[in-house]
Amino acid sequence: MFESAQIGHSIDKDTYDAEVPALREALLDAQYELKQQARFPVIVLINGVEGAGKGETVKLLNEWMDPRMIDVLTFDQQTDEELARPPAWRYWRALPPKGRMGVFFGNWYSQMLQGRVHGVFKDAVLDQAITGAERLEQMLCDEGALIIKFWFHLSKKQMKARLKSLKDDPLHSWKISPLDWQQSQTYDRFVRFGERVLRRTSRDYAPWHIIEGVDPNYRSLAVGRILLESLQAALANNPKGKHQGNVAPLSHSIDDRSLLGALDMTLRLDKHDYQEQLVTEQARLAGLLRDKRMRRHALVAVFEGNDAAGKGGAIRRVAAALDPRQYRIVPIAAPTEEERAQPYLWRFWRHIPARGKFTIFDRSWYGRVLVERVEGFCSPADWMRAYSEINDFEEQLVNAGVVVVKFWLAIDQQTQLERFEEREQIPFKRYKITEDDWRNREKWDDYTQAVGDMVDRTSSEIAPWTLVEANDKRWARVKVLRTINEALEGAFAKGKK
Amino acid sequence: MFESAQIGHSIDKDTYDAEVPALREALLDAQYELKQQARFPVIVLINGVEGAGKGETVKLLNEWMDPRMIDVLTFDQQTDEELARPPAWRYWRALPPKGRMGVFFGNWYSQMLQGRVHGVFKDAVLDQAITGAERLEQMLCDEGALIIKFWFHLSKKQMKARLKSLKDDPLHSWKISPLDWQQSQTYDRFVRFGERVLRRTSRDYAPWHIIEGVDPNYRSLAVGRILLESLQAALANNPKGKHQGNVAPLSHSIDDRSLLGALDMTLRLDKHDYQEQLVTEQARLAGLLRDKRMRRHALVAVFEGNDAAGKGGAIRRVAAALDPRQYRIVPIAAPTEEERAQPYLWRFWRHIPARGKFTIFDRSWYGRVLVERVEGFCSPADWMRAYSEINDFEEQLVNAGVVVVKFWLAIDQQTQLERFEEREQIPFKRYKITEDDWRNREKWDDYTQAVGDMVDRTSSEIAPWTLVEANDKRWARVKVLRTINEALEGAFAKGKK
Repeated sequence: MFESAQIGHSIDKDTYDAEVPALREALLDAQYELKQQARFPVIVLINGVEGAGKGETVKLLNEWMDPRMIDVLTFDQQTDEELARPPAWRYWRALPPKGRMGVFFGNWYSQMLQGRVHGVFKDAVLDQAITGAERLEQMLCDEGALIIKFWFHLSKKQMKARLKSLKDDPLHSWKISPLDWQQSQTYDRFVRFGERVLRRTSRDYAPWHIIEGVDPNYRSLAVGRILLESLQAALANNPKGKHQGNVAPLSHSIDDRSLLGALDMTLRLDKHDYQEQLVTEQARLAGLLRDKRMRRHALVAVFEGNDAAGKGGAIRRVAAALDPRQYRIVPIAAPTEEERAQPYLWRFWRHIPARGKFTIFDRSWYGRVLVERVEGFCSPADWMRAYSEINDFEEQLVNAGVVVVKFWLAIDQQTQLERFEEREQIPFKRYKITEDDWRNREKWDDYTQAVGDMVDRTSSEIAPWTLVEANDKRWARVKVLRTINEALEGAFAKGKK
Repeated sequence: MFESAQIGHSIDKDTYDAEVPALREALLDAQYELKQQARFPVIVLINGVEGAGKGETVKLLNEWMDPRMIDVLTFDQQTDEELARPPAWRYWRALPPKGRMGVFFGNWYSQMLQGRVHGVFKDAVLDQAITGAERLEQMLCDEGALIIKFWFHLSKKQMKARLKSLKDDPLHSWKISPLDWQQSQTYDRFVRFGERVLRRTSRDYAPWHIIEGVDPNYRSLAVGRILLESLQAALANNPKGKHQGNVAPLSHSIDDRSLLGALDMTLRLDKHDYQEQLVTEQARLAGLLRDKRMRRHALVAVFEGNDAAGKGGAIRRVAAALDPRQYRIVPIAAPTEEERAQPYLWRFWRHIPARGKFTIFDRSWYGRVLVERVEGFCSPADWMRAYSEINDFEEQLVNAGVVVVKFWLAIDQQTQLERFEEREQIPFKRYKITEDDWRNREKWDDYTQAVGDMVDRTSSEIAPWTLVEANDKRWARVKVLRTINEALEGAFAKGKK
């Protein structure tokens, strides 16, 4: 979930200086239009890791925009008046009216995360708080509000470095003091529970935007752009005061970095190492699937990737290790008539393995946020809600003991071109290449964007994505096998405790 | 919540026999249209109290409709196959395809209620299950499904009588055996947790319908009508396969009984008894509000009622007992400009009393499901979602120690007429009567229906409605005071434990 907020996004000073004036002007225009229309309020939630620039960004927004139309609200210790009333009262009385923007710096999410991180309550109570937040936000959206949620992120290493330099900053009004944060355990717990909260509360009507906080230029520009796009979309599409289905499109990357771009595509294995490691990992997998602890688990492996990235070959190397009675390969193509008569996830539910079994999905439920999104086979509202539906789905699998591994096999454009041409020339491979493949290739950037959003929104501690550098098929196959093995061993070890 | 399912609804045999043929024909037509369009599936959930006719009704639906297009599914003990997979798998594999109807007799709700009733888990885990159910249903609706939820109800006394006569019925496939149910503790727990589940899962896109189960004619006709109306509405209004906001209107009462109609409007107090009881209850209230246990509570009293039912007089009798620093009266009229710029509930949140204080709402947040519904000031989608928003709101109050009492002051039409005419004749009362009052009077039946739905959907153990027979003002005033006193004493006693 936080993968793409740890790859060192940055914007150089020249680019930043060139872009800011136009952004500021557009933001001011949107703000005045908001006031003019006075049809809905804007609620901006600011959350995330300590030291990731939350305070600085809020300060900056006030400089960029007209501060007379922004209410910045910090919710620290409850006042006497607040303590005498239901917990939500403090938020209700701070709600911005239609036409104004409220920046909630510290909010219901900070409160529930603090409580959980410090062990005041357990997951079930955290889930009650999450449900409460969801209902509040759903209601606010039904009443017309535009909600924009930012999570500022840093890797643990980045955070420690930032906190050192921030020690004397007067802006810290948190209970979780920087001192507390210096302990890595606090960071780990915060990020773990933060992920649970984000996974469950990123709904189509109020999605989270995760912002890498290291580089101030990147952070500021990213927040400004998302704010602007969300505002503009809501100002344009809001005839009835409702935002459901009217959320801004997920923002495009604003620097030249992306998760896929950050992969080291030169990784490779020579033939000898490959043979040795392949056999080792295959044997390890065979052993794990025969292990009696496997009786309490099932295994689901999802294979997605660029066309010609080598999904088929990787799947064959996995299957080669196994007794055919133990696994099933489910290729996902266009839905059958029977499947079209059911909810989207039905055709995947029907293939969920029983305990002790292993199912390999050759393409999967992620089709909705990849091909269906890019090709426009479903509406934006449909693929936007799919992220949380998929997270719910995978959470149910994991809760039932299913180990879920998900692979994106990535190749670069040049490698894909070579493989396409090779396929066209070799008669027995020619069936593998179609007009569609060439068409998809033209949408390379759209797919890259869709993959980035997919990983950001569905990679979680419980069901993480593994991005596989697949220019070298050998490297990719071994990495796939090793990842499966490590996931199984991890699950077995956890079951033991 | 179950009030109007305990008033002895019944349909006589002649009426029943006269109505059934047309209903059956219409149901069959709707069923064929459903198959023809094949645009969405219908999922019917059957839950409720043991002995309330769940099984008989399902049997009857199969007789009335074309059983080839209905799948009746019982979910009893999990099979080996089901146990080896995530809990939801059994429901997914049973989902009806588009164009068909699935009757889920025993379902996710039965499972969570059983677990909670038998103490397998506590409220926090029940709430997790409730959230899971909500997400599943929300997703199914987003995917186009029409979900109709029936809760069959009996009072405890009715249930005991029914179970005796049902002993030999072979249709019971429940874990909760009738034997178990004979113990009143099981009934009490089932109804209490059932209310929690219904309150939280009755959403605008999939509301619960509560059916009194005593009289087979009433029960069958009520279910048949709701099914028919829901089907017809969905078949007509479903161009994009979405049902959100397209749910059938809440059904009108099908016999001559209603909650309001069941009130004994002849109740009265003579002057002497009134004076004595009034003074006693006023003194009791004054004492309770001075009690030091009041420091941990606040009090909210909501007054709604027919025009000229005597709300003002009743409120004055309550206030007369008190120190003006302790209470505030908040009259609710049309929203101010400031209030219109905020979400609907905002103007009530701002008047929530601090601990130790008492706020009297002269009309309230129920305006949305009364006048705004009847006069069309808001859309059906808005007032439909208001029920659950109000329940969420009041639950937050109660969780924070607020005691919530809600009064509907009911008079009959004749009494209202007399009071209107009196007001027009007495100069100092003339300001109290307007054209609006006469107009509202013409919508008497609409208001009666709206009040019934309001009480059904928002009267809960934590914040019950009290219907006050107000033809006699003395009776009404004393009942109001006594109810407030009992609620406070109940809360104090609970706090003690």
